[in-house]
Amino acid sequence: MPRNITILDTTLRDGAQSEGVSFSLEDKHRAARELDRLGVNIIEGGNPASNPKDAAFFADPPVLSKARLAAFGATRRADSSVDDDPGLAALLCAKTDMIVLFGKASLFHAREILRVEPGLNLRMIEESARFLVERGRTVHFDAEHYFDGYDHDSGFARECVNAALRGGASSVILCDTNGGALPWRAAEITRAAVKEWPVPIGVHCHNDSGLAVANTLFAVEAGASIVHGTFCGVGERCGNADLCSVLPALSAKMGCATDCDDQLPSLTRAARLIADVMNLEIPSRTPYVGSSAFAHKGGMHSDGVRKDRRSFEHIDPARVGNARRLLISDQAGRAALLDRLAGIAPDLTRGDPRLTEIANRLKLSEQAGYVYEGAEGSFQLMALRMLGRAEPHFEALDFRVFCEQPWTRGGAQAYIKIAVNGREEITAAEGDGPVNALDLALRKALCVFYPELASVRLVDFKVRVIDGGGTGSTVRVSIESTDGGAVWGTVGVSRNIMEACWRALTDSIEYKLSGLTG
Amino acid sequence: MPRNITILDTTLRDGAQSEGVSFSLEDKHRAARELDRLGVNIIEGGNPASNPKDAAFFADPPVLSKARLAAFGATRRADSSVDDDPGLAALLCAKTDMIVLFGKASLFHAREILRVEPGLNLRMIEESARFLVERGRTVHFDAEHYFDGYDHDSGFARECVNAALRGGASSVILCDTNGGALPWRAAEITRAAVKEWPVPIGVHCHNDSGLAVANTLFAVEAGASIVHGTFCGVGERCGNADLCSVLPALSAKMGCATDCDDQLPSLTRAARLIADVMNLEIPSRTPYVGSSAFAHKGGMHSDGVRKDRRSFEHIDPARVGNARRLLISDQAGRAALLDRLAGIAPDLTRGDPRLTEIANRLKLSEQAGYVYEGAEGSFQLMALRMLGRAEPHFEALDFRVFCEQPWTRGGAQAYIKIAVNGREEITAAEGDGPVNALDLALRKALCVFYPELASVRLVDFKVRVIDGGGTGSTVRVSIESTDGGAVWGTVGVSRNIMEACWRALTDSIEYKLSGLTG
Repeated sequence: MPRNITILDTTLRDGAQSEGVSFSLEDKHRAARELDRLGVNIIEGGNPASNPKDAAFFADPPVLSKARLAAFGATRRADSSVDDDPGLAALLCAKTDMIVLFGKASLFHAREILRVEPGLNLRMIEESARFLVERGRTVHFDAEHYFDGYDHDSGFARECVNAALRGGASSVILCDTNGGALPWRAAEITRAAVKEWPVPIGVHCHNDSGLAVANTLFAVEAGASIVHGTFCGVGERCGNADLCSVLPALSAKMGCATDCDDQLPSLTRAARLIADVMNLEIPSRTPYVGSSAFAHKGGMHSDGVRKDRRSFEHIDPARVGNARRLLISDQAGRAALLDRLAGIAPDLTRGDPRLTEIANRLKLSEQAGYVYEGAEGSFQLMALRMLGRAEPHFEALDFRVFCEQPWTRGGAQAYIKIAVNGREEITAAEGDGPVNALDLALRKALCVFYPELASVRLVDFKVRVIDGGGTGSTVRVSIESTDGGAVWGTVGVSRNIMEACWRALTDSIEYKLSGLTG
Repeated sequence: MPRNITILDTTLRDGAQSEGVSFSLEDKHRAARELDRLGVNIIEGGNPASNPKDAAFFADPPVLSKARLAAFGATRRADSSVDDDPGLAALLCAKTDMIVLFGKASLFHAREILRVEPGLNLRMIEESARFLVERGRTVHFDAEHYFDGYDHDSGFARECVNAALRGGASSVILCDTNGGALPWRAAEITRAAVKEWPVPIGVHCHNDSGLAVANTLFAVEAGASIVHGTFCGVGERCGNADLCSVLPALSAKMGCATDCDDQLPSLTRAARLIADVMNLEIPSRTPYVGSSAFAHKGGMHSDGVRKDRRSFEHIDPARVGNARRLLISDQAGRAALLDRLAGIAPDLTRGDPRLTEIANRLKLSEQAGYVYEGAEGSFQLMALRMLGRAEPHFEALDFRVFCEQPWTRGGAQAYIKIAVNGREEITAAEGDGPVNALDLALRKALCVFYPELASVRLVDFKVRVIDGGGTGSTVRVSIESTDGGAVWGTVGVSRNIMEACWRALTDSIEYKLSGLTG
């Protein structure tokens, strides 16, 4: 019988402390629904006393199927009583059954930061917990700074927890608030807490030493049964323990059970959706859910996973909803290249000199700044052109783009002349900027000949400056297109952003017109 | 007497297996010189048999002051002898004293991936090591897949190491090649190895479970004395143990010594330089060296570190060459905002209604996509404008930008008319694209009035599409400028990329002309 671990997600609260992360009310609702779908037990929705947005969220909470919503807030202030403390009042206003109450569990923090006497710190904890419990709330006590507080003065750290328990807290969360703990110490301190107190013990780790996931797993190994974490590891400074790493480790490697287990195959999708809500990109090398997590570049590695996935994959990517990718690069073996071309040129063989030509061309393009990983459309067109199998579907005879102040709609205009099978079409469009205007004019001209292009639209558009420096830098434009069914990526590189866009755009259209979308 | 740990950096070898990372020869030289400066003991420079670029690197190696250069390569192939094996020949050609020789230390890998009999796998290891040692090389044996190989069949894994030692290898590196090990198991297996063999034992960890740093520290705790890692944690799939986290933990938290200790205060600078060589951005939440690693957003946290840095910082940021930042956001307290404005508006007080106006404006701008973190220039100008203290130094009366095929130099032209104190200047410029042309024309016109602008140039230029979707998406343009001394950041946001650029550019110039660069 696997040990059950309760998962509390604090993406909406501690995650919002991340640099660059800020949630709208609608963002919070979307993320909460996704966390609920994933099976998270408790969603810490925010600190209603700290900002009006969080208070508004609790006033109009999302409808959740299984997850419980918790409000987060501090013990009463030193200079107020529980009855007139605005923070505690805001917590009651949030109307959640569950409240995560945080207090200082460190003598250093009580004395030097809060600047209160040790005894007062204990009373603030005990009275606040009791006040909330007497009003029907379930209180989880977040023992802030517990690990370094314990190292500094273990007696006082434990007294703080005792105070919360006397006040009626039903569980205690040991927090590595500054992220400085080492895992062996986190394990020891957690083990002592599990032994000392009969309530469920949890752990809340920060990643300042790159050890938040390890500290979390060690605390569980030492007996903790509640885990705090965030999606994509967002959070104050270096972030919190990333649930995307913790959840699969608990169930696939440690024999524990969580209510997310059934939904693990949608972990990658959920992580990307929540990252999207936060307007963040998941770093590609992120364990389990990153785009590179199961990407094999070395020739020997590509060869290995083709023989047996366990050779270079510690877990089946499908188990966390991710997928294997064999990358094309100057390090990749011919086998991987052949694999990738099999769909469009099944006649190519390992010894074919054209394969060498394609590999060399690939190398040159990569040196120029092209990245075909994620731009399968441009990769296939490049290969087909090398093989003489890609007839262009149109020719751009001329175009001009104008852009001027004032920056109203129509701040940019494009004029274009194209030819298809000897027939010319000339048109113009205006747009939100030069790139948008050119895009619109090109599609308008082409739709005269190819009405099927009306269904094609861009779903993503990225610009990356790839050689630093000024406005004359080389830029890479990556776009993702869809026709409602298929989705394909293309890429263009140039020192002229318009040219880079043009290349990515025209590849996208050629890919569709060549029937390569499948 | 602290225990000394030898550091091997494999950024140039395993790091080059990262998706999106590719080194030119000059890149490798730059990175190697920086690693040498930092005190890394061994620089694994590449695999000379796997690609011509690595062979070229060893043919013309960088001049290093203290670090030793090592070549990396496989044991002989099953179907060749040591004398005619092309891989071993390439290793000798590399002319390094030290060779990192890797072989399979896993029965599963020998049988299923290499498809050789166990006895042959052992002979391949022993003979290859002996061949290199007899030719004067120091051989480190990378026992690939040692941890899972040990779990699968510990006897065979250990036999592989014995074979390498019989062949004359002078140290053994235990590799968690697929990144699946848990730290307690890594510690146990390392402890057994340290006990069994009299040579130095090292560890090489991958981050597929988010545990590479933890596994490395646990191996050291268990007696390993050589650590492999990369800068910024680059490497195959999820990357390798990040030396930026390992080095400070060893010396500041574990009482070990490395030859990098004296240089730790330049760790952040080194990481950013090496990231720059790799054309990567260090994720902001990266421990120790990320831009957010010591950034405090919550009001209580900002308040805490102002009272005592230990409250929310597990290590002094200066010790790793990073710096504290108090962030401005809708969560930050007024105290942090006041702090940030102290330099330009020392007369503002906590209760000043203008402070509320600035805070509200900040909130609106952030909602529109502005990010002032890293764009101090635009932040200060915004505040000064709100306070009525920012007189514009010029007025743009009119401009137009043209862009057309063909994309030769002069693919874009900009015409501009500005006014300074009633005097007009009209001029034009051509550039590598519309942004570059407008930038050049604006500077050209302004230099007539402000010759000091001649020294200003852009050092970084970033474009981020912030709301997905097509070419009409909102973009944020961030630029970093310098006048040779100061460096400042500015930002612009618009659906029209030209307008976003214009805002960031004009802010940069106004910042300089307002004398705010200090």
